[in-house]
Amino acid sequence: MTTFDLTPAAARAEFRAGTARPTTGLAQGFAQANLIAVPEDWAYDVLLFCQRNQQACPVLDVTDPGDPGTRLAPGADLRTDLPRYRIWQNGALAGEVADASGLWRSDMVAFLLGCSFTFETALAAEGIPLRHVEQGRNVAMYRTNRECVPAGRLHGPLVVSMRYIPAERVEDAIRITRAMPSMHGAPVHVGDPRALGILDIARPHFGDPAEPERGDVPVFWACGVTPQAALVASRPPFAITHAPGYMFITDVQDSEFRVG
Amino acid sequence: MTTFDLTPAAARAEFRAGTARPTTGLAQGFAQANLIAVPEDWAYDVLLFCQRNQQACPVLDVTDPGDPGTRLAPGADLRTDLPRYRIWQNGALAGEVADASGLWRSDMVAFLLGCSFTFETALAAEGIPLRHVEQGRNVAMYRTNRECVPAGRLHGPLVVSMRYIPAERVEDAIRITRAMPSMHGAPVHVGDPRALGILDIARPHFGDPAEPERGDVPVFWACGVTPQAALVASRPPFAITHAPGYMFITDVQDSEFRVG
Repeated sequence: MTTFDLTPAAARAEFRAGTARPTTGLAQGFAQANLIAVPEDWAYDVLLFCQRNQQACPVLDVTDPGDPGTRLAPGADLRTDLPRYRIWQNGALAGEVADASGLWRSDMVAFLLGCSFTFETALAAEGIPLRHVEQGRNVAMYRTNRECVPAGRLHGPLVVSMRYIPAERVEDAIRITRAMPSMHGAPVHVGDPRALGILDIARPHFGDPAEPERGDVPVFWACGVTPQAALVASRPPFAITHAPGYMFITDVQDSEFRVG
Repeated sequence: MTTFDLTPAAARAEFRAGTARPTTGLAQGFAQANLIAVPEDWAYDVLLFCQRNQQACPVLDVTDPGDPGTRLAPGADLRTDLPRYRIWQNGALAGEVADASGLWRSDMVAFLLGCSFTFETALAAEGIPLRHVEQGRNVAMYRTNRECVPAGRLHGPLVVSMRYIPAERVEDAIRITRAMPSMHGAPVHVGDPRALGILDIARPHFGDPAEPERGDVPVFWACGVTPQAALVASRPPFAITHAPGYMFITDVQDSEFRVG
């Protein structure tokens, strides 16, 4: 059994035991989620930021303060079941850990947001190649020059993920992803990285660069790393997030999030 | 010019001047919205309640504390531009007013939620009759026996609106409304009022009863009056809402909210 065949529960168990790897391509057919957890007094700002920037931050679940569980995967523990976490203090990355149990304050509220890895199965099912998966890499992500709508004390730029798509399949990729609005939906831009203020596509701000093949076009989707850019810009005292590309794997099937 | 031809701004001006009537059928082609406004210390509970009960409470906009404006209709004033308001104290209806200016606390946060009146234009455009509009009445609304997902200090039953639809057009009505998820989307139930705990369909809890025609079937949609039922069940100290059926008319076209 390769890791690609793992059930969500088995993948989470591996991560809980210490395995750390990007989750792209894992547990195919099950939705993946971004994590941002903050102390209770910042929860309204985060929830409002998500509401005002839904394409980047589609909320799948919000936990009650201190509860490490989620209805997206009964029995899972958000403090341990992601492969890698980032710890944030005053807007600075204080470190990365494989287990956030010791840092998870008793009043933490966790937000799970839709992730574009979720629609990759649907893209692959229609024969659209995923270069980063073929190349065994994390997806490439970039900060853009587009500002999110501010909410309370939170503001910051939109972050996008990029996939190289053969030009003749871009229309299909748009159609497929538009049908999953809670997984970022249709692309925010196709073609010119500079239109988003991305000056060097070979040097992503998060994740790994991918190699295009002849005839590929870069396609950009809103990304659930956007809240991490807002942490940097807005400097809240404390937060815990997933590491970009190291997602929470849920027990909910992709198809649950498909509209129409 | 009949009131049905009014622009959103003209309709709001009439309401500001004191006209009070249900807004079903008004300013066709423009989205209508439910209102719930609460003091800032209850805003997180309301926003989380909406997030957890999105079909009933699809959030279109959230204002900053004290701001009576909304991006859904620049220049409008939420304290005066609805035809009728309800004032709530400790979960009890304290009164109805045509102008909420004097009661709008300086820390009020207003939530505007999608409204099923918005999809009525699309139903009519495909020739589906709207009995309550034909009969010059407010739509019929009912509390159900379905509990919403609680959020913080808020809990309560789902409220639904009901429209009689000719049996052979129910499938079309489902298709049309499913494409507007931020306006409550597809029906929650078709056919049997008792399946929702509604014992007497001729006596709605809000709005007016409608008369069915031969071959009509009752069709039930989640309703933005749901937060008002949560106020009754949860007893927060203070809130202001629209009166059921007396909605806020936005400047945003219906089509903006259509998916696919």
